[in-house]
Amino acid sequence: MISKSLVDRFTTLLGKENVYRDKIDRFNYAYDAAVLEPVIPELVLRPTDREQLGEVARLCNENKLPLTVRGAGTNLSGGTIPQKEGVVVLTQALNKIIEINEADMYAIVEPGVVTATLASEAAAKGLFYPPDPGSQSVSTLGGNVAENAGGLRGLKYGVTKDYLMGLSFFDVEGNKIKSGSKTVKCVTGYNLSGLMIASEGTLGVFSELTLKLIPPPQTSQAMMAVYDTVEGATQTVAAIIAAKILPCTLEFLDNFTIRAVEEFSHAGLPVDANALLLIEVDGHPEQVAEEANIIREICSKNGSTRIQIAEDEVEKNRIWEARRSALSALARLKPTLVLEDATVPRSKVPDMVKGVQQLAGKYNLAIGTFGHAGDGNLHPTILCDKRNRGEWETVEKMIGELFEIALDLGGTLSGEHGIGIAKAGFLAREIGQASIDYSRKMKLSIDPNNILNPGKQVGGWNG
Amino acid sequence: MISKSLVDRFTTLLGKENVYRDKIDRFNYAYDAAVLEPVIPELVLRPTDREQLGEVARLCNENKLPLTVRGAGTNLSGGTIPQKEGVVVLTQALNKIIEINEADMYAIVEPGVVTATLASEAAAKGLFYPPDPGSQSVSTLGGNVAENAGGLRGLKYGVTKDYLMGLSFFDVEGNKIKSGSKTVKCVTGYNLSGLMIASEGTLGVFSELTLKLIPPPQTSQAMMAVYDTVEGATQTVAAIIAAKILPCTLEFLDNFTIRAVEEFSHAGLPVDANALLLIEVDGHPEQVAEEANIIREICSKNGSTRIQIAEDEVEKNRIWEARRSALSALARLKPTLVLEDATVPRSKVPDMVKGVQQLAGKYNLAIGTFGHAGDGNLHPTILCDKRNRGEWETVEKMIGELFEIALDLGGTLSGEHGIGIAKAGFLAREIGQASIDYSRKMKLSIDPNNILNPGKQVGGWNG
Repeated sequence: MISKSLVDRFTTLLGKENVYRDKIDRFNYAYDAAVLEPVIPELVLRPTDREQLGEVARLCNENKLPLTVRGAGTNLSGGTIPQKEGVVVLTQALNKIIEINEADMYAIVEPGVVTATLASEAAAKGLFYPPDPGSQSVSTLGGNVAENAGGLRGLKYGVTKDYLMGLSFFDVEGNKIKSGSKTVKCVTGYNLSGLMIASEGTLGVFSELTLKLIPPPQTSQAMMAVYDTVEGATQTVAAIIAAKILPCTLEFLDNFTIRAVEEFSHAGLPVDANALLLIEVDGHPEQVAEEANIIREICSKNGSTRIQIAEDEVEKNRIWEARRSALSALARLKPTLVLEDATVPRSKVPDMVKGVQQLAGKYNLAIGTFGHAGDGNLHPTILCDKRNRGEWETVEKMIGELFEIALDLGGTLSGEHGIGIAKAGFLAREIGQASIDYSRKMKLSIDPNNILNPGKQVGGWNG
Repeated sequence: MISKSLVDRFTTLLGKENVYRDKIDRFNYAYDAAVLEPVIPELVLRPTDREQLGEVARLCNENKLPLTVRGAGTNLSGGTIPQKEGVVVLTQALNKIIEINEADMYAIVEPGVVTATLASEAAAKGLFYPPDPGSQSVSTLGGNVAENAGGLRGLKYGVTKDYLMGLSFFDVEGNKIKSGSKTVKCVTGYNLSGLMIASEGTLGVFSELTLKLIPPPQTSQAMMAVYDTVEGATQTVAAIIAAKILPCTLEFLDNFTIRAVEEFSHAGLPVDANALLLIEVDGHPEQVAEEANIIREICSKNGSTRIQIAEDEVEKNRIWEARRSALSALARLKPTLVLEDATVPRSKVPDMVKGVQQLAGKYNLAIGTFGHAGDGNLHPTILCDKRNRGEWETVEKMIGELFEIALDLGGTLSGEHGIGIAKAGFLAREIGQASIDYSRKMKLSIDPNNILNPGKQVGGWNG
C-alpha cells in the first residue's frame, strides 16, 4: 500500500490532477497490446515537466515502489504491464519537440512525442525520420527507444537504434545521466544510449532523446506483385537482395491475410492470390526507375502472375494503408490475436514461412502471415480464443515450436516487438543463461531495489 | 609478480611460443599511438584460438591481474597502455574471417581481422564495409569496436557502431556472452553489442563480431576545392549539408597541413591555398553527376578559386592518399605530435576552426588542422617537443581550452579517437559525474576486481 504521505508528496510535486488514484482511471494502464492478464497499478502519475521525472524515480526508489514508464502502451510483449503494488508513469504530457536542427540534422524531443508527429514536423523542414512502427500514429518516441521499434522501412533505413544519437535519463537516485551527443561522431563515455535501446524501461527514466534526421529520398515507386505460390514470393525477396537492391519496403502477405485485409479495407487486393509482395523503392529518380525495372523482371522470373505499379500517391497510399490495416483486419476474425515477430536472416524467409504453414496444419490453427519479408521479420498472427483453455494451450505450445524454428534458422525471438514478460521464458534458449546473468548484474548494480520495470527484458526475477 | 605456476598454466593453455616473458618482447606492447609514457606489462599472451580467451580472462580474474586486450595499438588515447603488473592479450593470431554471407549481407569475424582485409574480402563478393579509420590498413576490427572507430566516410555511412549487428565476448569468469543477431532486426536481451561499442576493453573480451555489409555505391566522383580563406571552405561545408547532400567524404585541410602534405607526398596540392576541401559523392551515376554539379556551384559561390575534378581512379587515389598521409606528413616536422579530435555539430565547424586558430596564436604553437569537416570531426594537430617541459605544459593547457571550446559549441571531447587515459580527466566536464558513477557501478558489477583494462574510458580509479 502506498502511504498517504507519499501520495501527498507526489501530489505536491505533480499537482492533484496528475495523480490518478481512482480504480477506473488506473485500469486504463493495466494492460498493453500483448495478450496478457491486466494488472492494475496502485497509482498512476502524469508528470508535466521532464525535470519531475527524477524526483518521481527517487521517491519510488526510496519507497521501493516498482515504476513502469508508459508511452502509448502499443508494445506487443507486456513491456508496460505494471506490478500491482507499483506506479505507472505516463509520458503523455511530456510531448515537446525541443528542437529540430536543420543545419545539423537532428531533433531533440521529450519521450512522449508521438512518432508520426516528429516525422511530419521533420518533413515540414525538409528532413526525414525513417523509423515507422505500425503504431506510429500513436506510439511515442520514448517507447520506440525502450523497445527499439522497427517498422516497414527497416530493410533500407534501419530501426530506432540507428537514429538515437544521444539521450538523458534519470537513475533511481534522481540523478540525470547524459550519453551521446548532437555530433555525428561521439565516443565519450560508455555508449549508454546504445544500452538504453530495447532496455524496456529497466535501466532509467528517459527525459530527452536526440534523434538523427536525414535528407529525404527525392522520389519513390511502389508496386504490388501477385503470386500463385508462397514460394514464388519468398524466392523473389531473396533474388531482390541478391541483386544488391535494398527496397525501402518489401512486405509479404499470405492468402489468409490478403482475404482478411480486402474484406476490411476494400483496397482491391486479389483475394485469390496465394501471396502478395508490396514493394517500394526510393531515392534518385533514375535509380528508382532502374531498380523498379529490375525488380519487375525478378518478380516475373520468380512466377509473379501480375505486377501492378502504383500510378500516383493516391494509389500508393491505398496499397500501404491496406498493408497497415492487416493487424486490425485480422483482429476482427477471432476474439484473440497473437502477433509474433520471430525473425530470421532474410535468406531464410522461405523456410520460415514453410515452418509456419506446417505448424498451422499440425495444430489446426488459423494463422495469417504477413510482414517485413525484406528484413526477415515476418508476423505470423495466430487467431484464437484465449477463453478456450484447450485451444490456448495449443497456441502456447505452437509458439514455443515457432521460436525453435526461428532459432534453428539462425534467427531471433523478437525482431521488434520486445521480450517484455511475454517471451522472457524463452530468452535463455537464444542468448544463454550467462548473458542473462551478466545483464542482471548490471541492472541490479544501478537499480539495487529492482524498481525499474521489474521482470521485463532480462527476465522475471525478483532481484 | 606473476607466479611461475600461473605462467605455466598460460604456457600449457597457449603454447610456449605464445607466452612472451622477455622484456624486449614485452616492450613492444608498452605504448600505443597516444603521446603517453610507455608501461611495460609483466606478461604478453598471444591466443591462437578464440576459445582460449575465456580461460585467459578467468585466470587473470582469479589472480587479480589487469588484462588489456590489444589489436594493432593504433588508438590515439592510451586505450591499450597496460598496467605494469598486468597482462597484454594480443589478438593478432585471431584473424579468421569466419563467414561472409552474401545473401544476408553480414560478416562474422574474429577480433584480430584487419579492417582493410575485411573491406577487400567483402568487396570481392560485391559488398561494402564502409568504416575506414585512418589506420585501416593495420587496425583490427576488435579494436574498431572497442574504440568505435570512425573515418572519412562517417558523414554518409556512419561509424563502426552502425555496422555491429552482434557479438560474443567472454566475461571475467570465462563465460561466453552473446548479444545481437545475424538478423537485421533483433530486440532479444539487452543491447550489449551497443554497450561494447567504445567500451575500450573494460567490459569483456571479444571473441566474435557480426558486422553488417551493404551493397556498394555504383560510382563516385571526387573533387578538390581550393580556397583563399578558411571561412570560405567551412561555409561551403555548411552549405552542402543545407542543400541536403551527404557526400561520402568531405575533408578539410588548412594551409599548414597542405604544405606539410605536399612536401611529403608531392601530390600536387596548391601550397599557397589557405584551405582545401576534398569532396567525394557516391551512389547512382545520375545522382552523383547532379550532386557533383550542385556542390561545384556551392563551392564557387562560397569563394572557391579553383575546383579540380578527379578525372579517373588514379587521380582520385592520389588526392585521397595525400589526405591519408596528413598525419605522417605532420609527424615529420617535430618530435611530438598530438592529434586531437574534439568534435562539434557540423554547423559549428567555422567556429571551431576559428577557435583553434586563436589558441595557436595565443600560445604560439604550431597547429595543423585537417579532418572530417562534414561530420564536425576535425583533427587539430599540435606539433611540439614533449621533452621541452615548458612547451609541453603550454600544450596541455591549450588542449584543455580546446575541449572547452568544443563543449561550449555543443560538441564532444572525442569523435572517434577514444577517451582512454588521455582524456579521462575531462570526462566529467562533458557527461557529468553522475554519468561516470552510473557507468562505474555497471562496470564493477560485472568485473568486481576491475581487471578489464582498468582506468580506461570511464576514468582512472582503482575500483
